[in-house]
Amino acid sequence: MINDRLEKQIQFIIEIDKLKHVFRQTLLMNGTRNENDAEHSWHLALMALLLREYACAKNIDISCVIKMVLIHDLVEIDAGDTFCYDKEGNKSRKAREKKAANRIFNMLPKEQAGEFRQLWDEFEKRKTPEACFAAALDRLQPLLHNYNTKGKAWKKHKVTSDMVFERNKHIKDGSPVLWGYAESIIQDSINKGYLQKG
Amino acid sequence: MINDRLEKQIQFIIEIDKLKHVFRQTLLMNGTRNENDAEHSWHLALMALLLREYACAKNIDISCVIKMVLIHDLVEIDAGDTFCYDKEGNKSRKAREKKAANRIFNMLPKEQAGEFRQLWDEFEKRKTPEACFAAALDRLQPLLHNYNTKGKAWKKHKVTSDMVFERNKHIKDGSPVLWGYAESIIQDSINKGYLQKG
Repeated sequence: MINDRLEKQIQFIIEIDKLKHVFRQTLLMNGTRNENDAEHSWHLALMALLLREYACAKNIDISCVIKMVLIHDLVEIDAGDTFCYDKEGNKSRKAREKKAANRIFNMLPKEQAGEFRQLWDEFEKRKTPEACFAAALDRLQPLLHNYNTKGKAWKKHKVTSDMVFERNKHIKDGSPVLWGYAESIIQDSINKGYLQKG
Repeated sequence: MINDRLEKQIQFIIEIDKLKHVFRQTLLMNGTRNENDAEHSWHLALMALLLREYACAKNIDISCVIKMVLIHDLVEIDAGDTFCYDKEGNKSRKAREKKAANRIFNMLPKEQAGEFRQLWDEFEKRKTPEACFAAALDRLQPLLHNYNTKGKAWKKHKVTSDMVFERNKHIKDGSPVLWGYAESIIQDSINKGYLQKG
């Protein structure tokens, strides 16, 4: 006899398996295929654990950062992945993602739905030190992938260095050290011809 | 100018991208393809967050469980995924995985290598409440996948109910509630013909 509460939690666990089918524009490090959101979220969680010492805020709650990055893309199960340089798609992104959050998180028992929604809202608003650091990792990770695949996805989408600097500059709000590193690989990407200057 | 420490951490982050290429016998919930270790680890981390109330130990450190499940399969980058019912492969598994742990974790700065190794050893030994709960989730997740794909992977490998009970019974050490749930879906799988009795 399974109680309703556990059954709701299990149905949610089954539902989120769909994140493994949501593909991003980012290629895996060896360039063979696009990355999916579940893999990306796992990678960010480990980056949070490894790079916490570089967060601006010295007393950052890293468990909260890890939770945030684990759930930050769940809304894309319904809303899909919106390519960051897709101007048209980004106009409707927020509304699509809010609708998705309402459906997906509300599959859970009430207080867990609230916990997940609060974490997602915090991540989206990017006001707390935890959200700023989570967002910094969410930017740095695809940069590493682009750099290591010699800019394959940048070239495919005709992305230029101005766009990359503009898109990623808020890494600084979460971690000046990681922004310094990001700047260095963006510059090196321009020098090596992985990324078009402009 | 990037310091050695950050460079080591970044090289580790690049290295572990390989986990996205290590495929398990488990199929995704919609049965279209096998799951990889990175997706699996992400799924377990979210399950830990959602199901923590069912852990035996009421004062369980759930952040520790999450860390464990995030890193528990990294050794498979070198050692590969050993199918749990592969008797021959399992004879050499421990030695192959230890060798992998020595190489992979030692890419990190010393104290982080130590932290990761300690977490992995704890997970493998299954003595602490955190390790028992992490191991319970690591068993329950593929059960859910097998149940939801009508036992496709069980049938392919001629797995019987005795083998599944034997393999999964230690879920109880981490969570009697989740073991109760696991037993119910194993029984239902037998009843529905997803799993051969024997």
